[in-house]
Amino acid sequence: MTNFSRPSGRAPDALRPVTIERHYTRHAEGSVLVSFGDTRVLCTASVEEKVPGFLRGKGEGWITAEYGMLPRATATRTQREAARGGQGGRTMEIQRLIGRSLRACVDRNLLGDRTITLDCDVLQADGGTRTAAITGAYVAMVDAVAGLKARKLISKDPIFGAIAAVSVGVYRGVPVLDLDYPEDSACDTDMNVVMNEGGGFIELQGTAEGHAFRRDELDALLALAEKGMVELFAKQREALAR
Amino acid sequence: MTNFSRPSGRAPDALRPVTIERHYTRHAEGSVLVSFGDTRVLCTASVEEKVPGFLRGKGEGWITAEYGMLPRATATRTQREAARGGQGGRTMEIQRLIGRSLRACVDRNLLGDRTITLDCDVLQADGGTRTAAITGAYVAMVDAVAGLKARKLISKDPIFGAIAAVSVGVYRGVPVLDLDYPEDSACDTDMNVVMNEGGGFIELQGTAEGHAFRRDELDALLALAEKGMVELFAKQREALAR
Amino acid sequence: MTNFSRPSGRAPDALRPVTIERHYTRHAEGSVLVSFGDTRVLCTASVEEKVPGFLRGKGEGWITAEYGMLPRATATRTQREAARGGQGGRTMEIQRLIGRSLRACVDRNLLGDRTITLDCDVLQADGGTRTAAITGAYVAMVDAVAGLKARKLISKDPIFGAIAAVSVGVYRGVPVLDLDYPEDSACDTDMNVVMNEGGGFIELQGTAEGHAFRRDELDALLALAEKGMVELFAKQREALAR
Amino acid sequence: MTNFSRPSGRAPDALRPVTIERHYTRHAEGSVLVSFGDTRVLCTASVEEKVPGFLRGKGEGWITAEYGMLPRATATRTQREAARGGQGGRTMEIQRLIGRSLRACVDRNLLGDRTITLDCDVLQADGGTRTAAITGAYVAMVDAVAGLKARKLISKDPIFGAIAAVSVGVYRGVPVLDLDYPEDSACDTDMNVVMNEGGGFIELQGTAEGHAFRRDELDALLALAEKGMVELFAKQREALAR
Amino acid sequence: MTNFSRPSGRAPDALRPVTIERHYTRHAEGSVLVSFGDTRVLCTASVEEKVPGFLRGKGEGWITAEYGMLPRATATRTQREAARGGQGGRTMEIQRLIGRSLRACVDRNLLGDRTITLDCDVLQADGGTRTAAITGAYVAMVDAVAGLKARKLISKDPIFGAIAAVSVGVYRGVPVLDLDYPEDSACDTDMNVVMNEGGGFIELQGTAEGHAFRRDELDALLALAEKGMVELFAKQREALAR
Amino acid sequence: MTNFSRPSGRAPDALRPVTIERHYTRHAEGSVLVSFGDTRVLCTASVEEKVPGFLRGKGEGWITAEYGMLPRATATRTQREAARGGQGGRTMEIQRLIGRSLRACVDRNLLGDRTITLDCDVLQADGGTRTAAITGAYVAMVDAVAGLKARKLISKDPIFGAIAAVSVGVYRGVPVLDLDYPEDSACDTDMNVVMNEGGGFIELQGTAEGHAFRRDELDALLALAEKGMVELFAKQREALAR
Repeated sequence: MTNFSRPSGRAPDALRPVTIERHYTRHAEGSVLVSFGDTRVLCTASVEEKVPGFLRGKGEGWITAEYGMLPRATATRTQREAARGGQGGRTMEIQRLIGRSLRACVDRNLLGDRTITLDCDVLQADGGTRTAAITGAYVAMVDAVAGLKARKLISKDPIFGAIAAVSVGVYRGVPVLDLDYPEDSACDTDMNVVMNEGGGFIELQGTAEGHAFRRDELDALLALAEKGMVELFAKQREALAR
Repeated sequence: MTNFSRPSGRAPDALRPVTIERHYTRHAEGSVLVSFGDTRVLCTASVEEKVPGFLRGKGEGWITAEYGMLPRATATRTQREAARGGQGGRTMEIQRLIGRSLRACVDRNLLGDRTITLDCDVLQADGGTRTAAITGAYVAMVDAVAGLKARKLISKDPIFGAIAAVSVGVYRGVPVLDLDYPEDSACDTDMNVVMNEGGGFIELQGTAEGHAFRRDELDALLALAEKGMVELFAKQREALAR
Repeated sequence: MTNFSRPSGRAPDALRPVTIERHYTRHAEGSVLVSFGDTRVLCTASVEEKVPGFLRGKGEGWITAEYGMLPRATATRTQREAARGGQGGRTMEIQRLIGRSLRACVDRNLLGDRTITLDCDVLQADGGTRTAAITGAYVAMVDAVAGLKARKLISKDPIFGAIAAVSVGVYRGVPVLDLDYPEDSACDTDMNVVMNEGGGFIELQGTAEGHAFRRDELDALLALAEKGMVELFAKQREALAR
Repeated sequence: MTNFSRPSGRAPDALRPVTIERHYTRHAEGSVLVSFGDTRVLCTASVEEKVPGFLRGKGEGWITAEYGMLPRATATRTQREAARGGQGGRTMEIQRLIGRSLRACVDRNLLGDRTITLDCDVLQADGGTRTAAITGAYVAMVDAVAGLKARKLISKDPIFGAIAAVSVGVYRGVPVLDLDYPEDSACDTDMNVVMNEGGGFIELQGTAEGHAFRRDELDALLALAEKGMVELFAKQREALAR
Repeated sequence: MTNFSRPSGRAPDALRPVTIERHYTRHAEGSVLVSFGDTRVLCTASVEEKVPGFLRGKGEGWITAEYGMLPRATATRTQREAARGGQGGRTMEIQRLIGRSLRACVDRNLLGDRTITLDCDVLQADGGTRTAAITGAYVAMVDAVAGLKARKLISKDPIFGAIAAVSVGVYRGVPVLDLDYPEDSACDTDMNVVMNEGGGFIELQGTAEGHAFRRDELDALLALAEKGMVELFAKQREALAR
Repeated sequence: MTNFSRPSGRAPDALRPVTIERHYTRHAEGSVLVSFGDTRVLCTASVEEKVPGFLRGKGEGWITAEYGMLPRATATRTQREAARGGQGGRTMEIQRLIGRSLRACVDRNLLGDRTITLDCDVLQADGGTRTAAITGAYVAMVDAVAGLKARKLISKDPIFGAIAAVSVGVYRGVPVLDLDYPEDSACDTDMNVVMNEGGGFIELQGTAEGHAFRRDELDALLALAEKGMVELFAKQREALAR
């Protein structure tokens, strides 16, 4: 392991530089540009005074997410999903993950009959777009909810705790934190971890692309994720304090 | 916990009765009806002498999966995806999981320029359709590959190890194995675990619906999954020995 | 004609073995696995307390059907219609035929504001899937209606008479009953006949693939169909008596 | 039956006025406006030097049909299928019928590696659009094939015999020929009959909307259809002689 | 320019022969076959007692248009949009233009809660289909509105002024009026002009295919369009007077 | 007119502040963030070594464009086109306009067998998104072509002249330059003008929403557009010089 080095030169337990820029666009109730290194995702939170059919009349709100990738966010051009006639499996999988993750820190009864839609659009991709999206969307959602409180549309804060996400993986035999694209495409095992501030797991999605991972590897990966989370929650707090 | 009981009366670490019936239909190269209790999934393996575009000319085979649910596999009728005009997000998520899981035990170079498609169609649903599908599809794939060997189309077995899957979750505060529908819809945390015979993890997908799960709960869930796996691999071996 | 023989060795006027298994799956109000030889179709009847828009407020019920074929019901894999983005012409033609046929024995005023959907999914195909589907769907519908009566949701039976269907065709110059796939793909003339117990015709769909059929051939085919019907109605009665 | 009268005042065995106008539009290899009373269908035959995938390399041609209805061909506006995102079941059923019918009089080996597409677009509908379409499309196809012969692209005529179609039905208890819309929507039994000049049946599609039809009714309907055919074949010959 | 000649032999400022035939089909509230030379478009106006969602409850009517091209309206067969699964960009662009143009001469408050849909279907194409469609659709709309007045459903005429359209372009360096297909496909600059009877511009859509057009060319083209308009408005008045 | 003022306080002939930021994202061959006031559009140019089918084997390149709007670029959330299943009419109209405009300054023979796709995605909308897109996409295309020259893939510059676009309209009776959203939604006449550096018109799309525009108004609008163009070409040159 003496010779081990990550393509980016980062230490195995180092995140990429993370920035969270609020009020990035003007119309949305929450609008955040989040960067995990070269991965840049625009996360907007839109509040609408309606709920999907299955919640109608229950006095409960809804949190949902949609995910998109600009055609040239990637190294080679990806066909536009609108032009292809629909969202693909990867997109659906990711937006369902974002929606479930964010719902895990909201008391939807306190939200009332309204929906918050988190649109996460990748402007530039370099690995980890879904974890950056969750981390940024949380901040956009906090801003949107703050607006509801400021306008006295809700009295009690429906958000409890914070949510962030990071990827971990085994790259050339070494567990590493926050994979960028060169690592992601070459690594054997890849895990996306969504946690809350209290150290609880919200989502855990591990995939062994190359070789199955053993229990001790899993433990090492989870420890790395926990370390990264502390930094991500700090970044979110800083951004929200500005 | 003295008063704890599962809707089915099972012990927390008990699987439902599992049956694996080979040669269930006649045309497919592998055809398995797998039951996890009342969940019944027909898994067929189809061999085709072609590969998707991105593998053309590489001498590598492909393993892919498709998932479907008959409209009345469920308690109330679900609209047919073909009639709705396309596969939904849940279907895509599941069939991508099945495909990735099965690819994890196949040396695709040994398979040659051919594709094995695993069609997993749920005839009756009672929770755990994706884990039953993976467990059954493995057996169908083994039969399909055996056919290729018998016809001398391949010389060396491309399948290494076995793959099975089971769900675990925290139901009323107690970690339980192999959730049925009443448990699945009421539980706080739900995890699908795909493993190989060597005890390695292939996929891990945990979701906290109600409350975030702590590290000790995760450990308990993984221990349950490992116990269930031993039984599932035995069922697969028995079926293949018949 | 001394040398004439059918691929299956059956007499020209012989049906394949027909079995009708009720309560095949657990959730549907009616659930029947029907086999015409190697053709196996799962027919479920689902009762819903709603009617399509064009019947709203008229106090009339609706009977409709959907048809599907599992991808590997056939000798070579057929692409899944949900993955292709919609139902094809053949599927639509068949499900419209099943729906019209079943409506022909129901007084929809007695059914009230509810819809019975007959889902006919082919698990294994060997010719005659649509006639098997109609014959089985009738039994599933009777079970569903019996459930409505048992729950006192309707007082008078809306079903009058029975409906069954069989194919007939001219194979190598000889009129034969109940074509299997080898016959179906080689025959000159193919006719699907739907009748009621009173000997009335509900649907007649004859197609001359190879050579146009003469009036005397038509008469011979109709006589064969009538013979087959007697046996099919007996099979339905037996199944319903069990 | 003394009091019986058809809405149009026609005798039970009378066709509506039938006109067949060739060269109706300029670009198509065959272009026919056919009228059965107020039903007007534009049938064009387009010759293309290609065949569908399943016939490639077999030296066999193909005949296919597409059917459409202008939005305001009907009494109330029908939504445009292109705007709805696809062809409905009725359209698919009809265009498959037209294609099969026309293929029944063509030796596709003599046609060579080319496809004739028959586009049948209903400008005005008053019942019987599919039978008018078949009757007119035959004439358009003859013109297209004549063009191929004139240009010496084929030497032997691939068309043998003529094809026409007419509807028959039981209206207020009386078998009648060539139903118009008021009859069609009120009649109990409706049958579309496609025949060739030699008196052979090509397609027979009978549907009992109201009451099942008996064998003697079937015989009466077929006799009416045969009578109508004689007149339709005469109309086609006249048109082609002009 | 002494040697300049148009493929049709027309003078640069000459329209093709224009005919406007009312009551071309029977069901629509307005039905016009308009011809600009060999371009023939069937324009129907359908009145429906409903408005789109965004106008509900506002007491305002709506005018909208749909455009289609029969598959063999063109020199080579164009695939049917319904079969391709949706309307293409060109179709959408044209039908939006027709709708906007016609709305420009209607006081939608006087129309009341109803929608007039103008379906413009090209039976034969030879350039200028959209300008012919607008010119004909206006006449169809006038007939539909006259019907509403005759049935006393509206009291005051919501139509003010007339609307017509024509194309102009620079062909081989010379500004010409009303381009036919050979000119359209070879010309450098092409402009569609929609005007009202008062000489006001409703829509102006100029495109430089080959070389950018200068201001003096624009002036020459607009002068030609104005000349053509005078003749088109006269044709509309004549047709409406018959 | 003494009292006339624009919502933004701008003079009638004043553009909004225009900025053109190159190299905004990293992967694309050209990547420009263009702002016309609060309207912000990300324009990327992607070079691919292939051409569409209709150009295959002709040695000619292709320039095409796609347009999209992030769901929350607008004041209220717009449904994602990928989720709705396809691009709408407005999107198609705009992307066709961008493609045609850019093709007008490229000698496609010099480009060789390659395609440049201009993806214009609106991050924030405040009127004039299509004109900003054209103005920015030109710069992205220049960068992409410069890259081809630097890599010696082409020897002669295929781009001749520059292309820019601006909107003009009549707002409260006064011709104004570069409409923002409040003006755009309230104005009577709206025209998008695409020009080249030589003062030639490439596209002219004028629409009279409220009242038809007279010839003198058209002249005033074109004069305003010409003035705006001078400034836009200067902005492009400045950006390209940095």
